[in-house]
Amino acid sequence: MATNHHSTVGDAPLGVGKASVLRALHIVGDPLVVPNAWDAASARLVESAGFPVVATSSFATSEVLGYPDGEEVPVEEVLAAAARMVRAVHVPVTVDFERGYQLSPTELVERFAETGAVGMNLEDSNPRSKEMIDAGEQADFLAAIRAAALSFDVDLVINARTDSFVREVGSPEEQVKATLDRGGRYLAAGVDSIFAIGVRDPHVIRTLVKGIAGPINVVYGDGTVSLADFAALGVARVSFGPSLQRDLYRRFGSSMLSALVGGESPFTA
Amino acid sequence: MATNHHSTVGDAPLGVGKASVLRALHIVGDPLVVPNAWDAASARLVESAGFPVVATSSFATSEVLGYPDGEEVPVEEVLAAAARMVRAVHVPVTVDFERGYQLSPTELVERFAETGAVGMNLEDSNPRSKEMIDAGEQADFLAAIRAAALSFDVDLVINARTDSFVREVGSPEEQVKATLDRGGRYLAAGVDSIFAIGVRDPHVIRTLVKGIAGPINVVYGDGTVSLADFAALGVARVSFGPSLQRDLYRRFGSSMLSALVGGESPFTA
Repeated sequence: MATNHHSTVGDAPLGVGKASVLRALHIVGDPLVVPNAWDAASARLVESAGFPVVATSSFATSEVLGYPDGEEVPVEEVLAAAARMVRAVHVPVTVDFERGYQLSPTELVERFAETGAVGMNLEDSNPRSKEMIDAGEQADFLAAIRAAALSFDVDLVINARTDSFVREVGSPEEQVKATLDRGGRYLAAGVDSIFAIGVRDPHVIRTLVKGIAGPINVVYGDGTVSLADFAALGVARVSFGPSLQRDLYRRFGSSMLSALVGGESPFTA
Repeated sequence: MATNHHSTVGDAPLGVGKASVLRALHIVGDPLVVPNAWDAASARLVESAGFPVVATSSFATSEVLGYPDGEEVPVEEVLAAAARMVRAVHVPVTVDFERGYQLSPTELVERFAETGAVGMNLEDSNPRSKEMIDAGEQADFLAAIRAAALSFDVDLVINARTDSFVREVGSPEEQVKATLDRGGRYLAAGVDSIFAIGVRDPHVIRTLVKGIAGPINVVYGDGTVSLADFAALGVARVSFGPSLQRDLYRRFGSSMLSALVGGESPFTA
């Protein structure tokens, strides 16, 4: 990968080596599987189950903090939540950081590094308006994040999310074309991987894997496409977004609390 | 109840009326059921399911913040977590506040009131050493909390936890005797209810209900004693401690993450 030289084992004051570990786990055809966590307890369970990385979901983290997604959580709360997850585990932590919470690249990197997390997702649509950010503007932003990280000697694994599919920009063909274009630009700007959120079709995934010269991250979906399928398609990372937290908490409401409302035990055998 | 005159509807700057609502829900023979929450999302689900109060569990809240129970969480994080839960719901929130995190009564009430929560549990064993605090000393502490609340015009529903059972102090008979003694002292000090944690035996529960002149709170347990049973025994509040969060998160590890480790879908139908 283009950014392997950013490894600063022995140099970086924070998260020494963990960024390199995270980066190296993005293997085409043997994807890094990240069951996204939302708090310190879920992060510990992910680590205990044997997963080598903890990734957060901004939506799920916002949910348990009581805020809507879309950069509605004050950035200090997002950073504090990330720091709690980092403190709870030994494995590298990568944070879904929306579009950077309107911090300047320098402030973003400086404050983010204090959490001890070594990776971040950054998306290319406006979290509030949901409109796509101009591809060149986003590439410049990502390059500025990389430059700020290098200037602080912070090794940072940047997963550039591109939202053409999830924002349904143009026809399906135009969405593919935009993703290929943006993926190439963001890699050239120094990011480590491209997160094509909202892609469902295996043929499209194969097209992206072939057409983008870097690791591709997709979302697991509903299980129709299995982990083995994603591996065969050449995906390098499979994430879950807020779906695990949502599914679990739904059980709290629909199973445990409903039982109690009915006068029954909320506990399963 | 002895402390109904503490209601300050129309006077209190924070949580107007909510303390009165919480207090009035402690009905002997028609217990207030509080499925303890641990974050804003679980608090919302408790409210959505129709429960009229959200109560926190200190153990569960500590767990999701990444700390052991026993006042290991910095008090500012406990207060921030409580404030997030208060912000997330409309119903009264009561917080498991361990033994007050070593704050002075004045500072405790002042900082606690800022969260918007209107009730608190305070326990009578040392959260670190697990040793029982002298009954007179604890009664003085509780009286000082009540006095501080009155001085700030803060209506506070105090649930005094007494730990003779859970700390297994003396023989079973001595535990009952100590609980009766402490319960009486704490009510005289101005608390609203007595939380006899660790009581399992219906005969003992009946003894406590008869021998303590105030509402009794017990823990649900494993379901052997049903909500209807607790009502018939004259209990005024049934809580769950960390058991709901623990049971739910156990499912995350043993069901969802295990499925994923096995290459299967983590989602249930």
